[in-house]
This record gives sequence, C-alpha cells and structure tokens, in this order.
Amino acid sequence: MLRLLAEPMVLEHCVPAVFADAGVLERVAGICGLPEPSRVLPIEAWAGGEAVDEPTVVDCRAIAADGVEPGLVSAPCGRAAYTYVERAVRAVMDGRLDAVATGPIHKESLRLAGIPQPGHTEILAHLTGASRSCMLLTSDRLSVSFVTTHVGYAEVPDLMSRQRVLDVIELTAETMTGLRGRPARMAVCGLNPHAGEGGLFGNREEERHILPAIEEARSQGIAVEGPTSADAAFLPHRMEEVDAIVCMYHDQGHIPFKQVAFDSGVNVTLGLPIIRTSVDHGTAFDIAWKGVAQPTSLFHVIALTVRLVRKGRTAGERAT
Amino acid sequence: MLRLLAEPMVLEHCVPAVFADAGVLERVAGICGLPEPSRVLPIEAWAGGEAVDEPTVVDCRAIAADGVEPGLVSAPCGRAAYTYVERAVRAVMDGRLDAVATGPIHKESLRLAGIPQPGHTEILAHLTGASRSCMLLTSDRLSVSFVTTHVGYAEVPDLMSRQRVLDVIELTAETMTGLRGRPARMAVCGLNPHAGEGGLFGNREEERHILPAIEEARSQGIAVEGPTSADAAFLPHRMEEVDAIVCMYHDQGHIPFKQVAFDSGVNVTLGLPIIRTSVDHGTAFDIAWKGVAQPTSLFHVIALTVRLVRKGRTAGERAT
Repeated sequence: MLRLLAEPMVLEHCVPAVFADAGVLERVAGICGLPEPSRVLPIEAWAGGEAVDEPTVVDCRAIAADGVEPGLVSAPCGRAAYTYVERAVRAVMDGRLDAVATGPIHKESLRLAGIPQPGHTEILAHLTGASRSCMLLTSDRLSVSFVTTHVGYAEVPDLMSRQRVLDVIELTAETMTGLRGRPARMAVCGLNPHAGEGGLFGNREEERHILPAIEEARSQGIAVEGPTSADAAFLPHRMEEVDAIVCMYHDQGHIPFKQVAFDSGVNVTLGLPIIRTSVDHGTAFDIAWKGVAQPTSLFHVIALTVRLVRKGRTAGERAT
Repeated sequence: MLRLLAEPMVLEHCVPAVFADAGVLERVAGICGLPEPSRVLPIEAWAGGEAVDEPTVVDCRAIAADGVEPGLVSAPCGRAAYTYVERAVRAVMDGRLDAVATGPIHKESLRLAGIPQPGHTEILAHLTGASRSCMLLTSDRLSVSFVTTHVGYAEVPDLMSRQRVLDVIELTAETMTGLRGRPARMAVCGLNPHAGEGGLFGNREEERHILPAIEEARSQGIAVEGPTSADAAFLPHRMEEVDAIVCMYHDQGHIPFKQVAFDSGVNVTLGLPIIRTSVDHGTAFDIAWKGVAQPTSLFHVIALTVRLVRKGRTAGERAT
C-alpha cells in the first residue's frame, strides 16, 4: 500500500485513497525504510466531506498502532480489516470514489472478530445488498468464475442449482463481454471426474444443474459450452478458445489459475452495484513488515480496476 | 499400436507384444495406410507357450473384426478391451512378459459389458489381487498420485482415511525414490479450500485423515509436507521443490497435470505385484481409425516402462 501511494504507474491513471490506520502504516514505513504517506486524512474529515484529489491515506483509526504485531492472527486485526473494507465500500456506494480494490484479508482473523462472512466476496455482497454475485479471477491468459468459493469441499454439491449456475454464467458473460468488447465465449466445468462421463460418476449434478443452466444461457444468446471435463478445460489450447471458464468450486479454478497467472491475477466481484477488485494472493504473514513483498500483483489490480471504471463510464454514456 | 510395432525408438529398448484382435488391426491398417503387423500369434499358440522374441500381435479373437464400428461405444468392444487387459496382465503375472502398458479404455463400454470396475486402475488391482494400489501420473515436470480416482465428487470425503492417505504416501515415496535414485520429497494436498484454513472450511478432513498420515509417514523417514493448500501446491516454483504431490481426488491432480504435461504424461499403477503403465489420455473416438492420432504419448509410456523394468531388475539384484 505504501509503495502504491508513490508508484508513478498507478498515479498516472488514478488517485488512490488508502483506507487504513495511518499509525500502522507509519510504523511499517519506519521499519521497512519506505516513504511515509504524504497526505493523511483523519476519518472525521473524510466523513465531513473532504475530497481526495491527491494520493491519500484515510485514517480509519480502527486499531492502536503499537498493539499490532506483524504476522499475528487476532480479533482486533480482523475487526480493523473489516472496518477498512466497510468504509471504502460505503465511499464507492455514496459515489465519492469510483471503485474499491482490496488487499488480502486473513479469514481466521475475520472469524475471531465475529464477522459472519468467510471472505471479501461475501462481505461485499452483504454490504452492497447484491442479490447475486460471484468471484471472477482474470488474467491475460485465463479467466475463471465460481459457482461456490470459500466453503468446505463436501458442501459444494448442495450449493449447486440450475439458477445459481445460470447466475454465474450470466454475470461472467456480462463482464467478459465488456472487457473484450465483443460477445464472450465461455466453457462451464462439470463437477465430477470427466464431467460425470454420462452419469457414470457422481449424482448427475451435470444433468440436473449444469446442463439446464447452459441451455437457458444459450437460449439468451450467450456463447457457452459444457459441461466440460475439468481436466480438459484447462489444457493450454482449450483455454485459448474461450474467454472465461465457469468453475463449480474453489480449487477447480484456483489450481489452474494460479499455475498460469500466479502474480498477474486480479479478483473481481461480479454482480455488485459497485466495481470491486482484489489481489489474488493471501496475506503472506511470514513476510509481513519485512519490506520484501512484491507489489506487482496490486499494480495489475489497479490497472484492471481503471479499465473497468472506464468501461463502466462508456456503458453509462451509451445508456444515457 | 500399429505405429508402435514398427517404431525404431521402441524396438531399440524392448520387444512389444500387442494383445488385440489381429483382424481389427488389419482393417485399421488398410483404412489408414499403415503397415500391417509383421507377426501375428494366435491366442492358442500363445497359450501353448510360444515365445515373443520379435514384435508380435497376440491375436485374442475377442471380437468379430467386421462388426467393429470406429468410435461407437458398445458392450462387445468393452468386453474385448477387458479381455486384452486380462490376457496381458496374466502374461506378466506368469513371468512371460516384463510389464504391461495399456492404451485408453472407454469407461462406458466397460460398464455396458458388465465389468464392475470403473477403470484400468481398479481392474488391475482386482486381477492381481493387490491389497493396496493407487494411480500415479508422472512426467518430467510434475508427478501426482491419488487417494481416490474415478468416483463421484461427493463420494470422496467418505473414502478418505488416515490409512488410505498413508498407503498412497508410502506407495508414491517408494516409486519416486526408485525413479529418482535418492529419497523422494513430497507434498500432500488438503481436501478443502486453503487446506481447510485451520478448520474454517470443511469437516476437518485435513486434521482427521491427512495430518495423522503425514506424521506417520514422517516417523518412517519419508520426506513429506502438508496438508498443503492445493492452489499453492501447483505454483510453478512449488512444484519444483518436490518429486510428487499426493492428491485427494481426480481433478485436484489431473487439472494441473494435464496443464503442464498434456502429451508427455505416463500413468503408473502403484502397489501391484507387476509393472503396469498407461497413456494419460482418453479414447479420442472422434479421430478413431483416421490415422491422425499422435503416438507420442504411447512412446513416452514405453520409455518409462523400460526404465521401471530396469530399476526393478536392479532392485531385484540388490535384494538377492
């Protein structure tokens, strides 16, 4: 975040407002030998309507800076992280900022803080009141979206339905079509090995949920194929044939995505009334406050966020 | 198979005996313009003890050649495929041949023919009476083994146990150590997203089954780490740190394996009293009998099979 506030590649395209605790950032800057934030805006001033027209830390004062121990999972840290997200989301909902890009969050900290949502995607859906949403991971080589994300392996089949699969296909098609500037082509993975191989494996989840959703999406004019055997969908030549692959569960899409786009992936939450992006990596507490973290991934996120904001403006202009 | 019988790269290292129907191969040779097999040994002559000291088709006469329709899934074809496998396995069990390498099999054909096992791996375990076995996919860049393979997604958690995970770790360590010529290093994937993230996702399958198996394997001196988040285990730099990755279910290992080793992967069944390898692709009925199939994958299989036979002989010599 400190590097971002001073990065020419970022500042050329947007004005970043970092929702955080200035005291914590200043401690990190001191320890890691990074420049301190040039402008700190107290949360009261922000709440009073003060604008952000240069790189700014909005000082949320959600935690005592000297109580923060790097790499330690704690309820106060989880609560503070939630506060930053909530403040930033409200700023975008209120039209004061164009989009929110989040860093990684520690899910165990969230849980310790009593936050009922397991991760960002669910928090965002809750805060914005979105009726349907899903996670999209996107990169130059591969984009994947998810019918389920941060739930246990065994819970996935019960969370699948024709409507949920259709929602994710529609949300993915809409965003990828916007990004590509032409109708997106997509594939949908099956749940079982070999997409069930005609009912041979599994409980016909492909026939019961996935195929009817694909047929409905096709009848709407969406170019989508499947259910595809997941181990064939990510073959290099197959990935190139589509703009996005809809996955049924977390690892089905995260394994191949991280393999091909480890440090260039961007996480976008689809279906929200606001633009929300995120890095696609964890908190890396093992290197916290050491000044060695690579901000490359965050810069990719900012670049895509700016593209989405511009696309949104263009779409808005067309609509009016 | 026809190309294999005439391939110098193959013949330099082994004498291939193809268990098939000579009539079918001759039809294919005619249609595709490939050379006919130079030596055909009727199954009775083989059963009578005649040796294979040059490239040979052992003519199993399991199906009428003119009744075979390319690309059609049928019970007679499934039955014939099973017969070829059974004959070849028996030849190796009897010590008449050194190893069996199988082509792909159509699982629906097997089912139509009333074969109770869903695939090769299970058939082999059945025919050889192996008390424990598992599938290993191996290539220059990545090797993965499996706690479960051809079962429905929802069945996986109930098939996991400390003992089963331990069996697969031990079998994988033994083979990879043999192939590497030094103690193998391995990682074991979790079942849930982020390997359960400390019990946050799933039913603690990591703590109940995987971790105790890893601890037991370590106490035996096996270099194994985990449970690892599956989407981190296959990051390019992480793959290089280990010789094999133990996976809980089919797609967890097949997705990344096919992504990096599409046409160079070899399937080895571990835990059998015989050496058994296979190609790592499907039947490709869409290009059956067109003469366009690439035999590269099969040549990789033969090369590894020859290595395994030689390693086995070396190990046998050391043991005596």
